[in-house]
Amino acid sequence: MNIQQFVDNSLGQWRSQRSAHHLTFRHFEAIESVIDIVAVSPDDTAVIDLCKSYNIDPTEAVTPFQMTWEGHTDWDENAEMKGSCILVPIPDPTLPNRGKLLRDQGYAETIPAAADYHFTDDGTFVLLTSYDNAAAEEKIWFANPNLRFRVSLIKTSKGSGVVTASFSSEIRSLPAN
Amino acid sequence: MNIQQFVDNSLGQWRSQRSAHHLTFRHFEAIESVIDIVAVSPDDTAVIDLCKSYNIDPTEAVTPFQMTWEGHTDWDENAEMKGSCILVPIPDPTLPNRGKLLRDQGYAETIPAAADYHFTDDGTFVLLTSYDNAAAEEKIWFANPNLRFRVSLIKTSKGSGVVTASFSSEIRSLPAN
Repeated sequence: MNIQQFVDNSLGQWRSQRSAHHLTFRHFEAIESVIDIVAVSPDDTAVIDLCKSYNIDPTEAVTPFQMTWEGHTDWDENAEMKGSCILVPIPDPTLPNRGKLLRDQGYAETIPAAADYHFTDDGTFVLLTSYDNAAAEEKIWFANPNLRFRVSLIKTSKGSGVVTASFSSEIRSLPAN
Repeated sequence: MNIQQFVDNSLGQWRSQRSAHHLTFRHFEAIESVIDIVAVSPDDTAVIDLCKSYNIDPTEAVTPFQMTWEGHTDWDENAEMKGSCILVPIPDPTLPNRGKLLRDQGYAETIPAAADYHFTDDGTFVLLTSYDNAAAEEKIWFANPNLRFRVSLIKTSKGSGVVTASFSSEIRSLPAN
């Protein structure tokens, strides 16, 4: 698996069922959302600006994409969970199963983030992001072309303490006809 | 990672928070349980009998163990979720990261089951079990010595359809003093 294949396999609309385990309180949170993943042109201004903000040559970008999500949680029925971000993979020129993933908005904090990704030998995409006050680890893998799973851990920035562990089942929304 | 290390790391009492996603109905189930994992002597009659029932020489068994669990689910407040099983790893003599795991009681059906395990390059334990009418895939990995995660999929026996996906966060119960 490489990043081009992985992004290609991920394009589309997904219905996500996510369970978050808040480990300290042993609380279960249930989140349902719709996630849209669409390709973005490497020539898009947002892609070029994001690369430049990290002093990366925009021609190194491979298969940039946009994720948009909208959902609700049983933790707070009134909370609006929606957002969108541009993601730009920058593969390592020498190690095809590794690279950086630039995002104009991070997962644990709403600031730009450059994460490190790699693929394990069984095709799992692993993404590690360091923030000022936290670190995130995500694993994403496909059970079949229309079903993917995601495990996300939010860790303390130093050490290996895990604050929240969440698990998503994402089913592709197929056209009605 | 090999099976001896993995079982050694798993011994103890764990408090488990498990979320099951029943994918067809988009139902969330929350299960809390306590899991005890204890070593069992390779000379134990249950181990020897289990090996014999699969025509396996009991001297091939490595680090057999017993799992006992007791918990409750929000699906049915009155359901009693408790049980116990003996598990006997039989490493592949030529491939140290692979082998069979014999169980006197399976996960998806309550009949004896012989599963195939292997470790991925990042130390994840992967267990594949085929039953008459279903197949199960489990992945277990440690975030740190006192926290492990488990993703369990129940699949249709033929094909790649996933019926239920569940995620467990298991925290080691440390002695009070």
